[in-house]
Amino acid sequence: MDAKHRVVIVGGGFGGLYTAQALRKTPVEVTLIDRRNFHLFQPLLYQVATGALSPANIASPLRGLLSRQRNARVLMGEVVGFDLDRRQVHIAGADGDAAVPYDSLIVATGARHHYFNHPEWEKDAPGLKTIEDATDMRRRILYAFEAAELTADPKAREAWLTFVVVGAGPTGVELAGAVGEVAHRTLRNDFRSIQPARARILLLEGADRVLGAYVPSLSRKAAAALGRLGVTVQTGAVVTDVKADRVTFRRGDQTEVLPARTVLWAAGVDASPLGKVLAAATGAETDRAGRVTVLPDLSLPGRPEVFVIGDLANYPYQTGKPLPGVAQVAMQQGRYVADSIARRLRGEPPVKFHYKDRGSMATIGASQAVADLGWTRFNGRLAWLAWLFIHLIFLVEFENRLLVLVQWAYNYFTRDRSARLITGAPPPSPGERGASAP
Amino acid sequence: MDAKHRVVIVGGGFGGLYTAQALRKTPVEVTLIDRRNFHLFQPLLYQVATGALSPANIASPLRGLLSRQRNARVLMGEVVGFDLDRRQVHIAGADGDAAVPYDSLIVATGARHHYFNHPEWEKDAPGLKTIEDATDMRRRILYAFEAAELTADPKAREAWLTFVVVGAGPTGVELAGAVGEVAHRTLRNDFRSIQPARARILLLEGADRVLGAYVPSLSRKAAAALGRLGVTVQTGAVVTDVKADRVTFRRGDQTEVLPARTVLWAAGVDASPLGKVLAAATGAETDRAGRVTVLPDLSLPGRPEVFVIGDLANYPYQTGKPLPGVAQVAMQQGRYVADSIARRLRGEPPVKFHYKDRGSMATIGASQAVADLGWTRFNGRLAWLAWLFIHLIFLVEFENRLLVLVQWAYNYFTRDRSARLITGAPPPSPGERGASAP
Repeated sequence: MDAKHRVVIVGGGFGGLYTAQALRKTPVEVTLIDRRNFHLFQPLLYQVATGALSPANIASPLRGLLSRQRNARVLMGEVVGFDLDRRQVHIAGADGDAAVPYDSLIVATGARHHYFNHPEWEKDAPGLKTIEDATDMRRRILYAFEAAELTADPKAREAWLTFVVVGAGPTGVELAGAVGEVAHRTLRNDFRSIQPARARILLLEGADRVLGAYVPSLSRKAAAALGRLGVTVQTGAVVTDVKADRVTFRRGDQTEVLPARTVLWAAGVDASPLGKVLAAATGAETDRAGRVTVLPDLSLPGRPEVFVIGDLANYPYQTGKPLPGVAQVAMQQGRYVADSIARRLRGEPPVKFHYKDRGSMATIGASQAVADLGWTRFNGRLAWLAWLFIHLIFLVEFENRLLVLVQWAYNYFTRDRSARLITGAPPPSPGERGASAP
Repeated sequence: MDAKHRVVIVGGGFGGLYTAQALRKTPVEVTLIDRRNFHLFQPLLYQVATGALSPANIASPLRGLLSRQRNARVLMGEVVGFDLDRRQVHIAGADGDAAVPYDSLIVATGARHHYFNHPEWEKDAPGLKTIEDATDMRRRILYAFEAAELTADPKAREAWLTFVVVGAGPTGVELAGAVGEVAHRTLRNDFRSIQPARARILLLEGADRVLGAYVPSLSRKAAAALGRLGVTVQTGAVVTDVKADRVTFRRGDQTEVLPARTVLWAAGVDASPLGKVLAAATGAETDRAGRVTVLPDLSLPGRPEVFVIGDLANYPYQTGKPLPGVAQVAMQQGRYVADSIARRLRGEPPVKFHYKDRGSMATIGASQAVADLGWTRFNGRLAWLAWLFIHLIFLVEFENRLLVLVQWAYNYFTRDRSARLITGAPPPSPGERGASAP
């Protein structure tokens, strides 16, 4: 053939990046499009949000990752639409739109948090999906202690020293544990008027236990470890309102209004809007979270050349419900799609996608974790070491592995978190905050 | 005495931090006020702006630096005014204003860049004084290559690949050299449509040579080293206009309009507005840059308990003109003021301030530098090693020293800059950019 098969991948997360890399030796032309210039290791975002790591430690420039893969190029731009009949992706650039033609298309643009139909809560209860989310959260967490130190009003001080994490999945559990460590260890000697260790840290969960996807015994262990870090777990708690200075939640028949200046959101999933665009164009279904229900080979109805993978896809064929929104699923789907494309080019028959669950783990603070590998479950320091090892392995760049290892070792022995910078938007001015006071 | 002498320091830069630390053993109560929660090592900001280091590498939380100094506390807040008669500093906090009383006051709030009475240039030609400035610059520099790769229009591509640095003092020289390295080394294999090494990098200087504060022989060596990194130096060039897509400058009788999407500002000094407030209240003079002309003991007229130091002070008694705006001056003035306060408390006579110039140095790229220590001058690799060593020594935290060393070693051997992230504000949308096209 004269012109090579053109593979266009939208999204440089785990799904998109692993697809591109798995096509390394296939005679295709790969174009990876992302609106950011880096791949982000989302599982460690909470460590940026709590000042343990720097953004660059968990972000790797996509161009660097693919610079030696000669059949791949990277375009930084925002995908604004698709022309599935003409097989083109439309991206918006600084000098106008561009159309990128494809023979195979993989869309892997992931998901953000969902606010249970209350998008207005987001400004007061930020989620944790991007680098900017993480530095914003870091700013809010650290600034709360500063404001508490500055104020003379005991009620205001208490509200500043109340931290609420909504949602007790892995992100919520890890985040709440890290906030506990910041309060109890990192900042212990840093203030003169307040005692950071007296901060109240609440983890609210609608279900009846933390880490609902794990076996109940590990949930209990995780809850106990959180308690030791000063985190109060409240299960069966449904948030009904969020304002800048308070959160309202229902537990059974009780409604509680809690004055709190810092609410962090780790609940719900809302798939990228490109999912609905693709569903409307192909007749595919979307689920409640906006995920596209793909065919068993991860393609879309009537469009065998268009694939949706990762958090954006709903793949109900294996367990009857969507696969979990974790990196492993996206990576395995990316490799599967790359293989499918190579098979088609060689004229070989397709194989079936099957997700192989290698287990899951979550850390709680500096030396606790829970791990469920399917064939074995464990917790405590051993689980924590396993967690460290696996996360280092999957950091895609050697440099990041080295720097994260040095940083973690340092943090571990000193109980320090040197990346605890308040950066970005200035702290809320008195006027703005005052306007939202009760 | 029952109540301890209260020393209030405004600003946690080199001047303020070194004052606080020098008062460690003096029986006073130190309050350090800053609107940021960290001390920033400004001399390395250009490395953050060009993706070689992360913000946290050169920023150290002030609370951490002073946590073991029991006579010191830190307040994070914005100083909005002084009551010199009642000896109070007014700060704005999230819950309203607060008044902090003092017996001695040190104001060390530094300076920003000056735009020659064209403040409107700032949005298109950002300066480099804060972490946010640095990540904004990083975003612009890196995004320019992305936009160049994306566009099909050769003229637009050329404008995206034209970088202009205004001002050839140490910051401008180091910044231009680093941009040269990004284009020639870091990004060399990263693009498929453009060749980053063909980027045009212009360093514009109004005077007749780069590094005007150095001896002419070092200026020549620096200019030669810049040339080897692909930087074109234009001396005698005065910028007369800056727009989003072009810069206009005059050289002799010629006026040149240069299409350029990235203009970086490293010229002029504009002292913190608190200088004018203090001058108006005490009758002290301010110079053209807004610096307060202090008395020979760094205090203000009629207010022997109020000191101004660092970039905010004009100290004309030693050389007839202001001392240079470098860390060394601020650090020595901070230590001098701390000593003066201790002497007063002990009833000892004052001593005179005298700045001891320990020399100056600037790097140009990965292994070149120029150094002038007064008693000796050198350049090349030896100067570069001296520069490395001295900058590592003066990084205030051991952890930062370690991480910067690892990062530098990695960057040096791989020619990589892994912190090359485009973060913060989204890239300019087509509409915004289009509106400012010629």
